[in-house]
Order: sequence, then C-alpha cells, then structure tokens
Amino acid sequence: MSHALWNSMGLTGKRAIIVHHDDLGSLHAQNRAWYSLDLPTGSVMMPCAWAPQVIRHARADADLGVHLTLTSEWNYPRWHPLTPGASLRDEQGYFWATNEAAWQHILVEEAEAELRAQVEMALGLGLDITHLDTHMGTVLRPDVFQVYLQLGLEYGLPLLLPESAQNAPIPEDLQATLQRQIEASRLPKVRFASLYGADINAGWSNAYINTLSRLGPGVHHFLHHAAAADEEGRALPDWENRSGDLEALSDPAVRKILAEFTWVTYREIRDAMRRHLA
Amino acid sequence: MSHALWNSMGLTGKRAIIVHHDDLGSLHAQNRAWYSLDLPTGSVMMPCAWAPQVIRHARADADLGVHLTLTSEWNYPRWHPLTPGASLRDEQGYFWATNEAAWQHILVEEAEAELRAQVEMALGLGLDITHLDTHMGTVLRPDVFQVYLQLGLEYGLPLLLPESAQNAPIPEDLQATLQRQIEASRLPKVRFASLYGADINAGWSNAYINTLSRLGPGVHHFLHHAAAADEEGRALPDWENRSGDLEALSDPAVRKILAEFTWVTYREIRDAMRRHLA
Repeated sequence: MSHALWNSMGLTGKRAIIVHHDDLGSLHAQNRAWYSLDLPTGSVMMPCAWAPQVIRHARADADLGVHLTLTSEWNYPRWHPLTPGASLRDEQGYFWATNEAAWQHILVEEAEAELRAQVEMALGLGLDITHLDTHMGTVLRPDVFQVYLQLGLEYGLPLLLPESAQNAPIPEDLQATLQRQIEASRLPKVRFASLYGADINAGWSNAYINTLSRLGPGVHHFLHHAAAADEEGRALPDWENRSGDLEALSDPAVRKILAEFTWVTYREIRDAMRRHLA
Repeated sequence: MSHALWNSMGLTGKRAIIVHHDDLGSLHAQNRAWYSLDLPTGSVMMPCAWAPQVIRHARADADLGVHLTLTSEWNYPRWHPLTPGASLRDEQGYFWATNEAAWQHILVEEAEAELRAQVEMALGLGLDITHLDTHMGTVLRPDVFQVYLQLGLEYGLPLLLPESAQNAPIPEDLQATLQRQIEASRLPKVRFASLYGADINAGWSNAYINTLSRLGPGVHHFLHHAAAADEEGRALPDWENRSGDLEALSDPAVRKILAEFTWVTYREIRDAMRRHLA
C-alpha cells in the first residue's frame, strides 16, 4: 500500500524524512540526548530501566514507538527479558549478546511472548505507541519477522519495514526470503538510511551532511543513536559514535540540510495507515 | 553462634565495623562511587543493568554480596524480576514500589524463586558471594524472612541479620515474630547502624562523625548509599543523600573516625562461620 499511502499523505516525489532516535530508555544519557535534541521521533527499549522516564516526560506531540529488544549487546549495562522464555536468555540470564546467538537459540513462540509483553508494557505505562521497530534487527529471522509483521497489523502500527532487504544484517541466503516477506506485507515500507558505513574522518557534521545530501525522493527512516557524553554515556564502548550523532544533530548546519526535507512522523503514517486499512 | 564466632575472630569487646555500600549495580553513578571510595564491602542488585560492571571490575579482595531485591522504588529507573512470578509485579510489570505493596501481594514461593535466581545469577557471573542482604528490608515479612534465613544456611553465607528487630521497618505487630526468628537462627548477628534519622544540618561529615562516635563495642553493619552526583546520579529523587554519603566517606576526618574501628569484612565472617558450622 506504500504508494497509495504516500500519495494520500502528499509525499509522492518528495524527499521525506523520519529522524529516528534509537535505544531510548536504555540509559539516562540516551534520554538526555532525546530531551536535548527536542525532536519528535524515537523508540523505547521496554526491558530497560529508564524507559518510564521517556514515557512520563515526553512532549505532547511525541512520536514514540517500541524498540523491540531481543539482544543485550554490551558487557554492561545488560538487560533481561520481561517474559520467562529460557530460549531468550544466555547462560547468565540476560538477552543474547549477538544476533547470531539469538537466532541460533530463540524459539519463535518465546520471542512472540516477549515482543507482545514489550508492547503491552508500553501501553500499560500510558504510551500512545506510534510504531514498532527492532533493536539490532534481531526480528529479521524469517519466523520472528512474521511475528513482527503480525504485531504491526494487529496493533495497527507501522513498522520499520524497509523497501529492500538488500542491506539487512542477515545471512545472504535469507535476504530473498526477507524480500518476499516484505513485498507480501500490506504495511507501508520506508527507505532505510543511517550513518552506518559513512566516512567520519572529516567530522560528524560533514558525514551527516554528505549522507543526507545523497538521499533522493522517498520516505527515509533515518536512524541515529544520540547519547550524551557524560559519565554514564562514556561507559558504553561505542559512546563516541553516540556523542557524534548528538553533536551533528545539534549542529545548525545539519539542521539546515534536514530542513530541506519534508519531515514525517510515524504518528502521521499510523493515522493515515489506519484510515487506509479501515 | 554470634558470641563464639566473634570470639574466634578476636572481636569480643571491640568496636568493629563493616562499612557497607548498598545498591551497587543499580546505576552507573552508584558504581562510580564504589570505585571512588575504594572500600571493600557492598552488595549488588542483580536485576539491575549495571550489576555486571561491579562484578567484572572488582578489586581482588572485594567483599561483595547480593542485595536481594523485591522492590523498585523510584519512578525511574525501574526494574523487573528475573523470574516469572506474577505476584512479584505491579500493574506495569515492575517490582512493587513499596514494601507495603510487596508484602500485600507477593507469594512466598514466587519470592523464593526470585531470590534464588538473583543468587544464582551472581554466581553465574563469577561472583564469589560473601553475604546476602536485603533491599529496603522487603524480606522481613515472616515467611519470606524464613526463606532469607534458609538461603544463608544453604549457601553458607552470612546475612545482614540484626541482633534486634526493634527498629526494623515492619509493622509493630510483626517485630516480636521477627525477633523470635532472629534469635532462633544460628547465623551470626550484627548491630545495624546507618545515618537514618541523623541530623545533617551541620553537614554530612559531622553527621557521620557524630553517628560513628556513638557506636560502642559490637560488630556494626554500617550501611550507606554513596552515589556520584553526576547527570545520571542527580536523576534520583534522593540524590542529595547519596551524594552526602559519598562526600562524607571521602572526607579524611570521617576516615579518621572510621580508622578507630576494627574493620571487618563479610568474607572474614563467612569464612569463620563456615569453619564454625562445619
């Protein structure tokens, strides 16, 4: 339905962008960057301790989704599931550290129970969920991806659903399957964009400007992981990237490039999609 | 066995102290204070994201226990149980916010499963557990307290087990029961000491010096909650108390008063107790 949907939203032929803040709720420093940037869109990791802060203190037009989580990738902080599934846990009881380990072990029924519990917890905290997306893309295993698509339909929520499976972080032999699943879905599809792989030698702002300038027409889901470089934030192994995102997105030169786009929220997409599916 | 045990450790008649850092693992700021103070003893909240940091980066003679947790008292950060027990969770899925709510709802079997899982997670992370204690005293409900005593015996670990139930944070009609349970236990008993109720108008260091100076002979479990007053630490509603603990315990004048005590670790108590019970 993407073409008809974007058309109904007046986006056809435009350079449209959703600037998406990942990993909200994971750290106080991640939430700090969210308040500092004062942009509408992001998604919250419900198994993490700081999730309630984002939900309690969100701007009125906040465009917040659930960042469906099945992995806990650092040595610390670490997270454990909301639900009892043994297959979701590593030897210590945390979510698996890598997609490979998660894909090897998780049972689809246990993943489904966990993902549903994360959505329900967000609703229970009073979040008006506007979309769902996926931490590290762990939902991309085909059977789990079917659950992800199903949750979008059931809750009437748009997903981070890329048009193309080509650069998805999955084994190459699964990309064709993923592509078929994407194409079979009636949910709207976006163009995945990020700074992954960009050259940051000339500085974060330049990397942002270069990456953004290359984006053509389409609805781009541009994700970032901005976090404050405070004492807690600097405890993450990738804090420099997160701090770089914050720096660039705070830079008027980057905001100027972003202002050339038509900004879109998942709330707008969700509401248009619900009208469309009704 | 306390008298015989303290005697075997050469502590009889002495002013002995265990300076105990509570809530480790709960926040990065709490762990920061732990590294900054560089004292041996504290306990870790296993359902919290920063627990693995404490365990991975502990000094060789660290004296770390498990801070058994059945409550999550702030609006954020919040924690959820390791185990599935529905009675352990509030409407949102977190541990109960207060002891009263926890005592009203939790089933003793579900509390037992959770407390065992917290101990096992610490062991699984490689912690040489030296003792167990209790976050907010939630284990003081008589049936849960029996589980707590049982865990101490089973794992051969000393507990935070006060000689007197008199100031325990429980309804008055339960104090006699608690007192009987304490007296019936063969585990060593300590004198509970803290800054709770101290006058801090003359500053944290003075409050520490006054409180410590009044402690007579006995083995005192002196607990504190030192946390760094950084961006994350200041997000706690009681951050000024935590910062005050850090300030006072970093003050040479307080350290001088503390140096008048015989310092004891739970590792020493544990090892003496194991010889004693053997």
